[in-house]
Amino acid sequence: MKLQLAIDELNLEEALVQLEPLAEYVDIVEVGTPFVIDAGREAVRQIKAKFPQLEVLCDAKIMDAGAYEAQLAFDVGAEYVTVLGVTDDLTIKGCVEEATKQGRQIMVDMICVDDLATRVPAVESLGVDVIAVHTGADQQAAGRTPLEDLTEMKKHVKNVKVAVAGGISSKTINDYMALNPDIVIVGSGILNAEDPVKEARLIAEALKKG
Amino acid sequence: MKLQLAIDELNLEEALVQLEPLAEYVDIVEVGTPFVIDAGREAVRQIKAKFPQLEVLCDAKIMDAGAYEAQLAFDVGAEYVTVLGVTDDLTIKGCVEEATKQGRQIMVDMICVDDLATRVPAVESLGVDVIAVHTGADQQAAGRTPLEDLTEMKKHVKNVKVAVAGGISSKTINDYMALNPDIVIVGSGILNAEDPVKEARLIAEALKKG
Repeated sequence: MKLQLAIDELNLEEALVQLEPLAEYVDIVEVGTPFVIDAGREAVRQIKAKFPQLEVLCDAKIMDAGAYEAQLAFDVGAEYVTVLGVTDDLTIKGCVEEATKQGRQIMVDMICVDDLATRVPAVESLGVDVIAVHTGADQQAAGRTPLEDLTEMKKHVKNVKVAVAGGISSKTINDYMALNPDIVIVGSGILNAEDPVKEARLIAEALKKG
Repeated sequence: MKLQLAIDELNLEEALVQLEPLAEYVDIVEVGTPFVIDAGREAVRQIKAKFPQLEVLCDAKIMDAGAYEAQLAFDVGAEYVTVLGVTDDLTIKGCVEEATKQGRQIMVDMICVDDLATRVPAVESLGVDVIAVHTGADQQAAGRTPLEDLTEMKKHVKNVKVAVAGGISSKTINDYMALNPDIVIVGSGILNAEDPVKEARLIAEALKKG
């Protein structure tokens, strides 16, 4: 079980500093969508250069031009790039073809996919590596959590890895562990904690028990 | 009727050079999604600084954290930012609130929205400024054009402005003009033309006749 740290609201300089004491607890560093808007793919390049032992995910949330946009991320060292589950199958296929060419991985973000029972098997059949249940920040603010969606998704997944994101912290990690995801994505749960290093350690320890 | 030039596959240095002779024909410069992934919002800032007479659109294709991501684009001088029509209403509302606060505009990209008859009125009621019919690059490669979708969308729009994108060039511009869009978005049609300046001029002249 891997811990993915999502960085959304830091600039590149801050991110490089804040990652230092957290790196030992983290498996994957996510350059989150707002971070991509802010700093572009240079963020992926510099994080990978400074922390070569960590995998980096570029949360580009690709919606079109799959092969081209995936290549932009892979060329600067991303191990994973995200594509949206709501997009066209052709776009997901383009991402998968580029990932196969470069020996990298595609994570499908299922944010705003209504019908998981239909879409999860369809997306899995396209050859993606990870499918992520994701309750968005705006949906979380309205009181939703990804726990139900993870339960639902687990019913429809065959062999693909599963990730889960959306307001997870050390207080709620055990609820998610019970559902055995492959990747747990935590962002503000760690970065906005009073003691981010302690929070990262607690979550990493919980994942090791799983 | 405005001409929006979409820059997708240039880096920032190339974009600033190639824009120079095109600027007189263009109303809105779009920092396209791959360009955002490549250069981040710095691209918006530098294009606006060099061409203050032009409006700049940041094609962030927002899917979550609407207010926060819209602010990232507006703070560097974007007049417009895009949000996806397939996302949650809460995210679109967040974008609209931020745009209202800053006196800027929200364009909704309807790429991969299946049911325009239902979604166009819903999106319009959220207070957005522009709704864009968009046939993605991957869909175009499969033979689709945005002409039918524009016809369909025009039936459901009340007061909001309409934009259209997807493989438009001086050869096809008159087909679109007949449907009276407010903004015509052209990317590779101009930038990959043998003579980009001539192509931009031809399209701008066609728009003036409309």
